[in-house]
Amino acid sequence: MQNKQKFVNDPVNVVPEMLEGLVLANPDTLEWVPEFNIIHVKGGADSARVAVIQGSGSGHEPAHVMAVGKGMLDAAVPGNVFAAPSMDQCLACIRLMNGPGGVVYIVNNYQGDRMNWDMAQEMAEMEGVKVGRVLIDDDVSVQDSSYTTGRRGVAGNFFAIKAMGAASQRGASLEELVAMGEKVNANVRSMGVSLSGCRPPAKDEPIFTLADGEMEFGVGIHGEPGRARLATKPADEIMADVFALVAGDLPLKQGDRVAVMVNGLGGTPIGELYLLYRKAAMLCAESGFEIVRNYVGEYCTALEMNGFSLTLLRLDAELEELLAAPAEVPIRVF
Amino acid sequence: MQNKQKFVNDPVNVVPEMLEGLVLANPDTLEWVPEFNIIHVKGGADSARVAVIQGSGSGHEPAHVMAVGKGMLDAAVPGNVFAAPSMDQCLACIRLMNGPGGVVYIVNNYQGDRMNWDMAQEMAEMEGVKVGRVLIDDDVSVQDSSYTTGRRGVAGNFFAIKAMGAASQRGASLEELVAMGEKVNANVRSMGVSLSGCRPPAKDEPIFTLADGEMEFGVGIHGEPGRARLATKPADEIMADVFALVAGDLPLKQGDRVAVMVNGLGGTPIGELYLLYRKAAMLCAESGFEIVRNYVGEYCTALEMNGFSLTLLRLDAELEELLAAPAEVPIRVF
Repeated sequence: MQNKQKFVNDPVNVVPEMLEGLVLANPDTLEWVPEFNIIHVKGGADSARVAVIQGSGSGHEPAHVMAVGKGMLDAAVPGNVFAAPSMDQCLACIRLMNGPGGVVYIVNNYQGDRMNWDMAQEMAEMEGVKVGRVLIDDDVSVQDSSYTTGRRGVAGNFFAIKAMGAASQRGASLEELVAMGEKVNANVRSMGVSLSGCRPPAKDEPIFTLADGEMEFGVGIHGEPGRARLATKPADEIMADVFALVAGDLPLKQGDRVAVMVNGLGGTPIGELYLLYRKAAMLCAESGFEIVRNYVGEYCTALEMNGFSLTLLRLDAELEELLAAPAEVPIRVF
Repeated sequence: MQNKQKFVNDPVNVVPEMLEGLVLANPDTLEWVPEFNIIHVKGGADSARVAVIQGSGSGHEPAHVMAVGKGMLDAAVPGNVFAAPSMDQCLACIRLMNGPGGVVYIVNNYQGDRMNWDMAQEMAEMEGVKVGRVLIDDDVSVQDSSYTTGRRGVAGNFFAIKAMGAASQRGASLEELVAMGEKVNANVRSMGVSLSGCRPPAKDEPIFTLADGEMEFGVGIHGEPGRARLATKPADEIMADVFALVAGDLPLKQGDRVAVMVNGLGGTPIGELYLLYRKAAMLCAESGFEIVRNYVGEYCTALEMNGFSLTLLRLDAELEELLAAPAEVPIRVF
């Protein structure tokens, strides 16, 4: 028997049962297409707008099914845990959310995700659908990785969703949405650190293990190896190292305005995330970066992994306005 | 060296560094009194209102420091991890948030918390301060527990905060706020299950351990033993058992309207919480209980414990209205 330390039933049904729970909890705002694992805003995108969609592996919740809502994603189409959605799923989602102006998808840079979305895009275009693509590769940890040529896409993806979702509400065209997503990607960088592995529901063992006193520095959100396996050290020192690499990869200068995200990877108490944010805020102050918006919590996880990632987004007036725009997500904090 | 698998610095500073991070992230809405670990709404409660405050151990975040905001708590005064705030802290918080109408505190039923709050209340009353108290004991798991005479107070506490916070904004008197809190407590029940222990930052070892295939059925939020240590089973069966005990302890009948919370204890992926909510929603439907509001996520945790709790609140029109009232908390979901 598997998954003794998980709250699941048959591992085969983990994703559909999660999605069913999500729509049962949000009957007024979300709809579910069980055949394709599609979660979309109730009633679909209004046809005057260009819909923004995303599909990736499950196990990263709230990304992306819990980012579906007005001013965010119009639909998400998750694959199984840590597995890309199939070409059929991607195509079904494109067809469903297509309107007169077309549809734009966001894809994190993993080979499986890209391949299936590429094929779905081709198929849809042969049907006459106008499709735009935004590729996210914000992870500065490694240049190539287990499932990636080029950098991985991680939590910075959230900012593409938020900015593009807000722009779509304002009537942006497909081309404008793609340009907006590319602007976010050009200005966002992330890096993660973990103190534990995680265990997909269909596996008996964690995808990797760390001894007491070890950390994976630059971990991927599927447990991909990072830059190095190092000895742990105080949180402030870890954050300082991560901050230097993330900030150093952006053309940031004194006086720049930034958004800062300290994202939990799933198993880390929120108290520790705020402790880490404290140091990030101090480092921004020392560097002369003004934090305009901050995000502390779970945005893109790796199941129950004990870890965090830092994301910095360099802002301009347009991005600031889009980040501040109203939005709705199926997560209740009161 | 301790805490190798935690993002902390010196364990002695975990709470103040977390609180500093929290106020750095919320400079416009929160203030911090470092001497007493007090987090309060910026500028203090307006004197026309009766403030609602709470203090308990740390390690349960977002409870309660991340429940400070307009329409929620006016202040929280946490002790160290899993330790009650001192009498001095409680008294300082009462004094600081006191106004012409007095101040009301909420306390979960643990001996340490009650004793220190009782003493602080006596001291404040000797100073002429009018103090109201609401005791929460919603946990149906066990009658008495490690640190408790009578039932423990757990995640149901959230609903007392929300209802009393909203009532305070509407100008409720001290007596009305106490009555509201007592009404919530009379109508709310919870129970938790864990698949792992957790490790306070100042300890080398988890406070308890479970073998693969074991669960603590009825666990407390400080790792207190529950009803039994049992073999794990599918999530739907666990939820069915918990639901029967929680619902069975309330005078619920067909047609009743309820709020349902599936609360993560810290280390459980939110996907699993939605999978658990799915079954809870089905059980409510079968029982003829109408879910008016639902809450899926982390509200009251036990550090990184892998577990969940179910809370049911039996509603009336007044409670429904107060739960739906606007509120602000320092947690950003977009």
